[in-house]
Amino acid sequence: MKLSTLIATCSLAAALLHSSMISANPLSPEAAPSRPKNIVIMIGDGMGPAYTSAYRYYQDNPNTQEVEQTVFDRLAIGSASTYPAAVSGVVTDSAAAATALATGVKSYNGAISVDTDKQPIDTIMELAKKRHMSTGVAVTSQINHATPAAFLSHNESRRNYQALAKSYLNTDADVLLGGGKKYFPAALIKEFEAKGYHYLADFSQLSQVTQPKVIGLFADVQLPWAIDEPEANRLSLMTSKALELLSTNQQGFVLLVEGSLIDWAGHNKDIASAMAEMHEFARAIEVVEQYIRNHKDTLLVVTADHNTGGLSIGANGDYRWDSQVLRNISASPTTIATEAIAADDWRTVVESRLGLSLNESETRQLANARMQGHKVLDNAIKRLIDTRSNTGWTTDGHTGMDVQVFATGPAASLFSGYQDNTDIANKIISLLPKVIPAQQSQNQDAPKATKITGVSQEPKGQSLTQKPSAMNATLTQ
Amino acid sequence: MKLSTLIATCSLAAALLHSSMISANPLSPEAAPSRPKNIVIMIGDGMGPAYTSAYRYYQDNPNTQEVEQTVFDRLAIGSASTYPAAVSGVVTDSAAAATALATGVKSYNGAISVDTDKQPIDTIMELAKKRHMSTGVAVTSQINHATPAAFLSHNESRRNYQALAKSYLNTDADVLLGGGKKYFPAALIKEFEAKGYHYLADFSQLSQVTQPKVIGLFADVQLPWAIDEPEANRLSLMTSKALELLSTNQQGFVLLVEGSLIDWAGHNKDIASAMAEMHEFARAIEVVEQYIRNHKDTLLVVTADHNTGGLSIGANGDYRWDSQVLRNISASPTTIATEAIAADDWRTVVESRLGLSLNESETRQLANARMQGHKVLDNAIKRLIDTRSNTGWTTDGHTGMDVQVFATGPAASLFSGYQDNTDIANKIISLLPKVIPAQQSQNQDAPKATKITGVSQEPKGQSLTQKPSAMNATLTQ
Repeated sequence: MKLSTLIATCSLAAALLHSSMISANPLSPEAAPSRPKNIVIMIGDGMGPAYTSAYRYYQDNPNTQEVEQTVFDRLAIGSASTYPAAVSGVVTDSAAAATALATGVKSYNGAISVDTDKQPIDTIMELAKKRHMSTGVAVTSQINHATPAAFLSHNESRRNYQALAKSYLNTDADVLLGGGKKYFPAALIKEFEAKGYHYLADFSQLSQVTQPKVIGLFADVQLPWAIDEPEANRLSLMTSKALELLSTNQQGFVLLVEGSLIDWAGHNKDIASAMAEMHEFARAIEVVEQYIRNHKDTLLVVTADHNTGGLSIGANGDYRWDSQVLRNISASPTTIATEAIAADDWRTVVESRLGLSLNESETRQLANARMQGHKVLDNAIKRLIDTRSNTGWTTDGHTGMDVQVFATGPAASLFSGYQDNTDIANKIISLLPKVIPAQQSQNQDAPKATKITGVSQEPKGQSLTQKPSAMNATLTQ
Repeated sequence: MKLSTLIATCSLAAALLHSSMISANPLSPEAAPSRPKNIVIMIGDGMGPAYTSAYRYYQDNPNTQEVEQTVFDRLAIGSASTYPAAVSGVVTDSAAAATALATGVKSYNGAISVDTDKQPIDTIMELAKKRHMSTGVAVTSQINHATPAAFLSHNESRRNYQALAKSYLNTDADVLLGGGKKYFPAALIKEFEAKGYHYLADFSQLSQVTQPKVIGLFADVQLPWAIDEPEANRLSLMTSKALELLSTNQQGFVLLVEGSLIDWAGHNKDIASAMAEMHEFARAIEVVEQYIRNHKDTLLVVTADHNTGGLSIGANGDYRWDSQVLRNISASPTTIATEAIAADDWRTVVESRLGLSLNESETRQLANARMQGHKVLDNAIKRLIDTRSNTGWTTDGHTGMDVQVFATGPAASLFSGYQDNTDIANKIISLLPKVIPAQQSQNQDAPKATKITGVSQEPKGQSLTQKPSAMNATLTQ
């Protein structure tokens, strides 16, 4: 942050605090309230700290002296540990991490908002529904993948995709956007429609929707790599539409947005696709940032569930990371491999897509790999990109380092400094309205934590009366 | 941070702010002033974010349910980018990083507080001296290594160790503690003594010193690995003594403490030594933390200069990191290798030192390595520890990811959120007294930026009258 920006921010904060102290007048509509009406939670799946640093250099304009700040730099405020329940050691999977972020309780790797006894735990989304808030998810994976599933449902295993898809019927979620057609057969979609959902099978339909509820499935499983369709801007458009639809509820909303494929690129050790997915996610954050400028009653909290790949900016003793190599690439390695296998003049295809000239050794390596089929060629292209850019990886899985926390809007400062991932959920839960609206008993469609598959039938989450009240008291002064 | 702690902290901060607004009374002696009299800067060399996460699990008491917080968790407040001047790309070395942290100006890799034109830049230590504050360094490397050198001196290359050692004569630094006898021959030590320095050649002498100036050199080059002498506690003792000696100056002081060997262990890809060096550094931070409890006019800022090794907590697709393996080890791999080469029953030595039983494959690998000499055996032991603990590395050099920032004491909140490493220096500089005491002209021994070796003779740093005043104004309200 520029010193001048810092001073301006500090002065503004002090002025706001001072004015609130000397005046008992209610805040004007333009001013930010002390607690949010709406909450947007954004998760960069697998987005460890090296990803946001790398993205800064990937995004840097090489024609300026300055290294430009990113949205992550603007919103950075804290960090979070990600370790799962002790039974799973210190390296979490996405399910246990999402359970922690959705419920405030640590569980075993694979758990979808059930505790270590496989008992369901109330999620932020369920608690929001009990307060008649709207809820939604917008993700680039299938909508029943671990992260969104842990916010919406409960299951003893993230792998029970069919059961999770079916369980969404009982979530009362207002907006469901992402991939996953494969898990939602026509009969199940009919059931959603019977519950009042509008079904979108094609991305072009999204802009025409004007009211919830909506379920939009835009791919069999995950959405296409952003690097292969950089102008599609799908996560931003889904986020924007979700905000528009959810805003109609005067009780407020909770929206989960996930940059799901950052993690998938990390598992593949694919730095080119990872950086494009980071950009996809960053642009979606900017959509929410802009929304908050016009809706000061909305809190945004951004974090990652864990670090994927052990990505490092520089490797092998060489103090160098060449982001220009990545900016020159115009397709994912998997797409380039497909095109190169289909083409006679494969070398021209590869050189054009990578934006570089292959030397003799590289040409020989890719020629050999091409003979062994798509998977080997895909890997060879990724390793070539790693060598050219000097990118390092330690694993095709996850690592246990802390992740970053970013926030803006009312009560954003609650998320500053170090915290555990469960603290993030508990702080968000503490910001939900304290009093449940009187019409609660009329809402028979509200989700029941007991209506779940694959777990025992007695909910065991925190009851609403047990929520920590000290912070609520502070915030509602 | 526990929710209760957070609430207590927030309430305290609000109360302090409120009381300062409704009362013009000076603060009581026990209360913290808005700007510090003393500043302690602590640098964990190479201590990227994975190191502090790993240290939490290394330090965790396996007999408790909870994962205990570390001093890093308690003090975490922000993050910082580390990229050097554009000419050196985005991966910094320790010299350019220390130059940024000491002067607020980015330079090329290798630079010791000179800019890209090799012109000297005023350092925090020099600016403090102009204000008649005391200065000191306490490090576990040689005292003329890159980090302390950039705070005290200027040179076009970090490799000019002899010139840097000699240049310390002109720094007027009050406390110099660490290693480096090799670079300070008897004739040079005599010159220090002629300037009023008390020379300590043995660590046992440290406790007897009661006043500055002092130069203590406790090893030829760097101090011994902490893992080989865990009870020696050298960095804590040097830090404690430095605080005691520097506190005698009523004008305040600036102290630099470096956990230098975290980086050296990272370069060696030696996780066992790295964790012990982290503990050595953490205990030194706790010494300062305790000092600040009794001296509320002291600011502590802790950061890293860069990330070393591309350390990852978990590797090779396995979601596991076994810190117990590391807690069982009682010597550094290099020491174990030395002992194993000298011993006939080398297997017993290795098993005893590592606290494990070697399986057949491991025994065969170490036996082969032992035949090839110390270096190969040392490496084999480190790789065995990596495999057992499931630790990953990508490089024996540095990587470009952001590092963390930790702070406590007056104006600590200035360091929250994302910033560049140069911002850290500029914020610290802005906290130095604005007005230079009148006796300035009498102090003929104050350091001259012009008295340097290996660079041109005209200082080109920010002049004191150019310091940003907006923040000072805010802080002195």
